[in-house]
Amino acid sequence: MRIDLNADLGEGFGPWRMGDDAAMLDLVNSANIACGGHASDPETMYTALKLAAAKGVAVGAHPGFNDREGFGRRVIPMPPEEIGRMVAAQIGALMAVARLVPVTVRYVKPHGALGNLAARDIDVARAIAAAVRQIDDRLAILAISGTCTETAARAAGVPVYSEIFADRGYLSSGQLVPRGQPGAMIEDAGAAADRLISFLRTGLMPVIDGAPIKLAAQSICVHGDSPGAVAMARGVRARLEAEGVTFAAFGEV
Amino acid sequence: MRIDLNADLGEGFGPWRMGDDAAMLDLVNSANIACGGHASDPETMYTALKLAAAKGVAVGAHPGFNDREGFGRRVIPMPPEEIGRMVAAQIGALMAVARLVPVTVRYVKPHGALGNLAARDIDVARAIAAAVRQIDDRLAILAISGTCTETAARAAGVPVYSEIFADRGYLSSGQLVPRGQPGAMIEDAGAAADRLISFLRTGLMPVIDGAPIKLAAQSICVHGDSPGAVAMARGVRARLEAEGVTFAAFGEV
Amino acid sequence: MRIDLNADLGEGFGPWRMGDDAAMLDLVNSANIACGGHASDPETMYTALKLAAAKGVAVGAHPGFNDREGFGRRVIPMPPEEIGRMVAAQIGALMAVARLVPVTVRYVKPHGALGNLAARDIDVARAIAAAVRQIDDRLAILAISGTCTETAARAAGVPVYSEIFADRGYLSSGQLVPRGQPGAMIEDAGAAADRLISFLRTGLMPVIDGAPIKLAAQSICVHGDSPGAVAMARGVRARLEAEGVTFAAFGEV
Amino acid sequence: MRIDLNADLGEGFGPWRMGDDAAMLDLVNSANIACGGHASDPETMYTALKLAAAKGVAVGAHPGFNDREGFGRRVIPMPPEEIGRMVAAQIGALMAVARLVPVTVRYVKPHGALGNLAARDIDVARAIAAAVRQIDDRLAILAISGTCTETAARAAGVPVYSEIFADRGYLSSGQLVPRGQPGAMIEDAGAAADRLISFLRTGLMPVIDGAPIKLAAQSICVHGDSPGAVAMARGVRARLEAEGVTFAAFGEV
Repeated sequence: MRIDLNADLGEGFGPWRMGDDAAMLDLVNSANIACGGHASDPETMYTALKLAAAKGVAVGAHPGFNDREGFGRRVIPMPPEEIGRMVAAQIGALMAVARLVPVTVRYVKPHGALGNLAARDIDVARAIAAAVRQIDDRLAILAISGTCTETAARAAGVPVYSEIFADRGYLSSGQLVPRGQPGAMIEDAGAAADRLISFLRTGLMPVIDGAPIKLAAQSICVHGDSPGAVAMARGVRARLEAEGVTFAAFGEV
Repeated sequence: MRIDLNADLGEGFGPWRMGDDAAMLDLVNSANIACGGHASDPETMYTALKLAAAKGVAVGAHPGFNDREGFGRRVIPMPPEEIGRMVAAQIGALMAVARLVPVTVRYVKPHGALGNLAARDIDVARAIAAAVRQIDDRLAILAISGTCTETAARAAGVPVYSEIFADRGYLSSGQLVPRGQPGAMIEDAGAAADRLISFLRTGLMPVIDGAPIKLAAQSICVHGDSPGAVAMARGVRARLEAEGVTFAAFGEV
Repeated sequence: MRIDLNADLGEGFGPWRMGDDAAMLDLVNSANIACGGHASDPETMYTALKLAAAKGVAVGAHPGFNDREGFGRRVIPMPPEEIGRMVAAQIGALMAVARLVPVTVRYVKPHGALGNLAARDIDVARAIAAAVRQIDDRLAILAISGTCTETAARAAGVPVYSEIFADRGYLSSGQLVPRGQPGAMIEDAGAAADRLISFLRTGLMPVIDGAPIKLAAQSICVHGDSPGAVAMARGVRARLEAEGVTFAAFGEV
Repeated sequence: MRIDLNADLGEGFGPWRMGDDAAMLDLVNSANIACGGHASDPETMYTALKLAAAKGVAVGAHPGFNDREGFGRRVIPMPPEEIGRMVAAQIGALMAVARLVPVTVRYVKPHGALGNLAARDIDVARAIAAAVRQIDDRLAILAISGTCTETAARAAGVPVYSEIFADRGYLSSGQLVPRGQPGAMIEDAGAAADRLISFLRTGLMPVIDGAPIKLAAQSICVHGDSPGAVAMARGVRARLEAEGVTFAAFGEV
């Protein structure tokens, strides 16, 4: 039983911080680092990249809509090919700043509204996959199993890894329980860990509306930006370690 | 007699254009393309890069202070190492968008207030040279001969090329006549061409306050953003061609 | 036969210009001035306001989505009450800069995607009308007849004036022919003027799919940002003047 | 013994927060609210304004350089008249959003690098004072006693109030001990309170390099953005209340 823990980090901007990057980087194996679209700037990127490198955490690019005011949670209407260019510029910015550390950017995970859009819109997913492939053919994509993002990445020849969420409930369709509905959020670290352990042992994920479903996952996403984020991540990790789970960045699993 | 012509291009933003990129790209051999700091955005970069590639024009990154409102003409006070990170993010953004064309970014020329600051401040020049070197050791720097930018680039092992200005007067110190003083601007294409031909034949540049001075130059900078820019560039190029000068991108000279 | 001509002006940003404000201000009676959302900044506002005041042109605020890169032509998903706050901040910015001229901001006309959204979404229209009313109860709204914008303005007690477009075709439903369809754009100033004269004489607007329809209008919108904008506006105005039409800002009609 | 406590609030941006506005608003009488220059956006303004109004705290505009990345702590080189326009646009934005609460903006206090620049540069101070006066002649300015800001405000006929700092050491020249030097910061709430009580009783402020100096002050500035800010403000206020000091917004003293 071996898995990766990932979190969205480097999501500050200028004088502002989001979550506790240093604490999270002691807990995760992979850091999805914002690259100046929905959050971050060159200094914020550099600080997050350097800290991740110092702690041996693998780094990925976390591009989002160019909308800091909305934190990348709003869909900005754009043709897919413009999304490809926007994502390319952000990944390239992070990669170049990473050279100054130096550390290698290993993968890409789209953020927020962009991630959700790519998951359901094959044209957007293809534009992102094509951009990733053209920028550097060693870059992987981290996606949710069964989404357009995964499909497009495979079709483009981009290595793709799957993630599940530590603190989000699942439906028997494989989709997440929408936020705001009962069962959407798992707020107790113990309950979250129990479910993950069950999944890691059986490959089957408990759902709120039926029998457990088969899911693929090389990584578990923990949130980094809420007040209880560090405690949740710490609790989940401790419980999993106690059950004999080992942790490593997904590219190295 | 062989030389390069370079101009600053891709300096629009969103719906706004600056100068006539298409016309300039028929005249120059090297295009310094803005990368989202003082101007440009992913679409503007892509459009300029694609047009340059289609016309066989070499492309360089043209980073500037992150200040579109001031068009990069104001010094934003920042420690040199932060300038290095800012420049890295911009170069990386352009390089990644260039992969989508695809075309290779060959060099870096700092813009406006950043270029002037690097020319006189060795710490800023070193931070830029170090960033360029760490991002990609095949990237060159395009600088004015005798500046800190040139010194720092050489010291960092970055290939460096020198430029002179088609339409700016020189002092016997080798510096440009400050804007606003008599002789600062050469507005007649014929007069500009005469001076350049004299320089290309003798290696000596006429100055306004003494005997011609020795200058090194692999490139001539023509401006792209003023109303008469295209006419000036066209006039200078035609006259030089008539005198037997041939044109090629400076890396290929 | 008396009418107002209005155009969107002050739509530059930093070093960038959009259209020819000075030429347009010789032709229109009302200037819809961008206020830092989709375009403009304090200097651009001030320049446009001062020029409008010098030429005796009435000024209105032209707020849009806070999206310069997309020039306010993309719907940024926001709750109506957030739109109200966004619009308030922009109107307030323009009003305060106008005090420095000094000139009085007389009305508000939403821009681009925001204008289209308000026209069809009564909640957005109400949020805008409420904001306008609360900021200054002397401010009017300039809208298209029959839209939610007009309805909400009337309900909120905001004075409302209607506009028609000089260069856009109409459907018998009263809506504009969508861009990209035949008849959407009228490119000949003579044809545009003929239609306007017919409308001014009869109150009936020719449409592309049936008999002329009844429309209310105190103002004619001419575009300011396309290459032929000035020629179109000049041509239309000259023809209308030749037919005995007089021009005055709509608040003064 | 009656005085005002003021703090800089509403300095978040989009998803990011700065300090604990709700806690500070229970302690201060006047809130200097950022207006979209160095920090804030329409939602952040509205939230801060509404909370201040609900708690009966007087509100002022806190304009700064248009530089969120640098949080307004860097001098952006601009002619004074452009600074006047920039400040006007920010004040106007806040005033218009305040109408939606509704609450009245009573004064202006320049932020960070802009505040420091206005304090020492009479032309900048005059441009700000003129803008404030032209926008609304009931607006006051909150300044440090003896600065150009105060001088220019008086000359322009703008009501002006003076502030002292709760946690900054003074020199016998009347200036603050520069940050980084011994005695610059007072980190103990008790020590800060002792000094303020001494000042309120005698009108003389203890300094680190000589005898106490005479200072005028209608307000005490407490910081709102550091981790210990709330504890410091609470401690100072409690001690002053215990000594019989009463608190009221400076305009009402």
